Amino acid sequence: MTTLAATQKALRDGRITATDVTEAHLKRIAEVDPGIEAWAFIDPDHALRQAGKLDKLRAQGQPIGPLHGVPVGVKDIFDTRDMPTEDGTPLHAGRRTLEDSTVVRLLREAGAVIMGKTVTTELATFQPGKTHHPVDPSRTPGGSSSGSAAAVASGMVPLAVGSQTNGSVIRPAAFCGVVGYKPTRGLISRRGMLSVSRTLDQVGVFAPTVRDAALIAEVLMDADPGETAERLHARSDLLATATSVPPLPPRVAFVRSPLWEQAGASTQEAFAELVDELGESVGTVELPQVFAEAVELHRLIQDPELAVSLAPEYERGKDQLSPRLRAMIESGSEITAAAHIRALARIPVLTRALDAIFDEFDAILTPATPGEAPGIETTGSPVFCTTWSLLGTPALSLPLMTGPNGLPLGVQLVGKVGDDARLLRTANWLWNRIATAA
Amino acid sequence: MTTLAATQKALRDGRITATDVTEAHLKRIAEVDPGIEAWAFIDPDHALRQAGKLDKLRAQGQPIGPLHGVPVGVKDIFDTRDMPTEDGTPLHAGRRTLEDSTVVRLLREAGAVIMGKTVTTELATFQPGKTHHPVDPSRTPGGSSSGSAAAVASGMVPLAVGSQTNGSVIRPAAFCGVVGYKPTRGLISRRGMLSVSRTLDQVGVFAPTVRDAALIAEVLMDADPGETAERLHARSDLLATATSVPPLPPRVAFVRSPLWEQAGASTQEAFAELVDELGESVGTVELPQVFAEAVELHRLIQDPELAVSLAPEYERGKDQLSPRLRAMIESGSEITAAAHIRALARIPVLTRALDAIFDEFDAILTPATPGEAPGIETTGSPVFCTTWSLLGTPALSLPLMTGPNGLPLGVQLVGKVGDDARLLRTANWLWNRIATAA
Repeated sequence: MTTLAATQKALRDGRITATDVTEAHLKRIAEVDPGIEAWAFIDPDHALRQAGKLDKLRAQGQPIGPLHGVPVGVKDIFDTRDMPTEDGTPLHAGRRTLEDSTVVRLLREAGAVIMGKTVTTELATFQPGKTHHPVDPSRTPGGSSSGSAAAVASGMVPLAVGSQTNGSVIRPAAFCGVVGYKPTRGLISRRGMLSVSRTLDQVGVFAPTVRDAALIAEVLMDADPGETAERLHARSDLLATATSVPPLPPRVAFVRSPLWEQAGASTQEAFAELVDELGESVGTVELPQVFAEAVELHRLIQDPELAVSLAPEYERGKDQLSPRLRAMIESGSEITAAAHIRALARIPVLTRALDAIFDEFDAILTPATPGEAPGIETTGSPVFCTTWSLLGTPALSLPLMTGPNGLPLGVQLVGKVGDDARLLRTANWLWNRIATAA
Repeated sequence: MTTLAATQKALRDGRITATDVTEAHLKRIAEVDPGIEAWAFIDPDHALRQAGKLDKLRAQGQPIGPLHGVPVGVKDIFDTRDMPTEDGTPLHAGRRTLEDSTVVRLLREAGAVIMGKTVTTELATFQPGKTHHPVDPSRTPGGSSSGSAAAVASGMVPLAVGSQTNGSVIRPAAFCGVVGYKPTRGLISRRGMLSVSRTLDQVGVFAPTVRDAALIAEVLMDADPGETAERLHARSDLLATATSVPPLPPRVAFVRSPLWEQAGASTQEAFAELVDELGESVGTVELPQVFAEAVELHRLIQDPELAVSLAPEYERGKDQLSPRLRAMIESGSEITAAAHIRALARIPVLTRALDAIFDEFDAILTPATPGEAPGIETTGSPVFCTTWSLLGTPALSLPLMTGPNGLPLGVQLVGKVGDDARLLRTANWLWNRIATAA
């Protein structure tokens, strides 16, 4: 199987066209999607029209972007002016917008083919959509970015975009066996994306390799004056750093987290072996006890914000919402401002508590999920993602291990806030090291 | 009476010393403060020691700051490493801190003599402190920056610093008959200042003239990496712009606001005369009906934030809090996060609703208070300041009118967010125009 880097080289050299690449992926979709159902919307002709335009630009000798001719799947919560955006709820069926979300605009400007809209859970929360796990259709692909993870894992697109409020990028990436990358909070604009929790919502990406994740993330990390919660940052050379050799051998901190007992026995064993394998490159670190609060703090922040964000849907058609989401909105509406404000004030405190770890280690190594993908009736537990969603740290899931049923088991790497390039470089190093050892 | 500008020139030229200036003001304090009680802490020897040091620096030919030798009063909610900071509550009696607040540090770096700490209401809220109105001791000087306003109005110091969460700068400035200036939210660091409402608290200044207010505000508008709610801004040439001639004749929008009926009859008449006097330089504008929400929105933001900020005091000694503050903390604790979040989201909406006014006019002209200072049992109504506190617009009170009892009646000018220099220039223009007409 050819890599995305090789495809991109062939596109640049003119040995293949964007139309060729799009046709090949549409063929793959026609073959495998009936058993996976990763797409909320797809129109092959429209995708080919985009590819045709890109080929024409190239033929005219015009400059081509860093994603020229690359098909990308976009979670169906990002507005697209040429496709519906239904947010995984019948309440938004047929919803159309006049404008692209910033993420989609940046993808188009970089030359990507917007292949279609991928299935999201209901309003990017817990109720599963129609998508099946790409290997075992009786299991969940994870959520909420279910279709994006499954589409990349099954080769329907090389890249996809999703979002994470709790574990919605890292968890499906881990279950499906692809790279999931959630950058530092505030680096990618959320304009034109469904808002669930103003504080916690983040954009994330799915890709076959760390290099490919860095490629698309770098495109998306463009300043947007319309994003009021933007973190100021110079444009970083993410791709170049991610694929460079670390100046010193990295060291990672294995963190069980206060939630360790929620990991399955086989996950605990797999991580023990991984730590063994890494030898002197790893140190075992206990998180301070204060991290036991993370799940409750996340709830106190997310639930009232969600209750406000989704109030229009609740008011318009609460009977069309799942009982679980309805209950979250109702209980979220009861949380006091004092509790919400206090929870928000804990974010910098917990973030600072990690400084000592990042002074000594390049990244935290921890499970992405309690185990392999469970059955299709849920999207699995986000519990190993909650702390990093709360703090807005950069996080990656790497498909480096396999569980007892032969399904992927994700290894999560977490970096220091703002230090995304180093995290990606460390991830690439870890990947190469484990691949060499295997 | 000599102006601050003249005093500063004499200091620069070496005709007088910082010690001379400080001694003169200490003498004035000894004369008038017994009837006013503007000071929570004052130590003449300590003030003179500061002045002596400044004189020594100048004598050595070292560079002197823009406030060299100028005595400044500091509201007793800003930490000072060499004086107690008691926040207007017996719960903080004798409280000392190791560090200066950023405001105090910047004043010292600019060469100011920190004359002492001025009286604040209880925890910068409503319960009056001991200070009397400088003209009529049976009346309030306003609050919460009571001592700062009274000290400047009575010539005890030329400059003072206060804070505003609702109307705590503009209102006492208007009652006492001095210039009060509350800059755009986020331009002055609040580090080391008592926190009441994280969203709404702002630093403000008191001075005899617009020029003097611009002088001290420019010193305080220094970037502070410790202030997370800082608004990014280039260092502005506030003083130079404030005292420059407007390129075009300014026009102001007279805004009655939805609260007009709360203004006393004599205030309504005084503003009618002022508008008459200004002729073509003024247009009468109605605020959109949405502004009727401002008072309620302010409460939904301030009260839960206050309940969190002052929870330690409540828990430690609620019986030592005033009944009114206790009630605010208790009812603020009940407000839901959803109501708080929704109120916060209205701030940009209301701010944008002013754009049309500022496209046409240089500033909004509106009362600062319902009338002259009322009796000493309250600090007066903040209602004409609430909207501008909520929105974080820059605002000034100018002592341009007199009420039926011969006491000052403030004229409030409100500017566009971020456009502080223009507001100060417009204020100076208005002042000169009214003074010439009188």
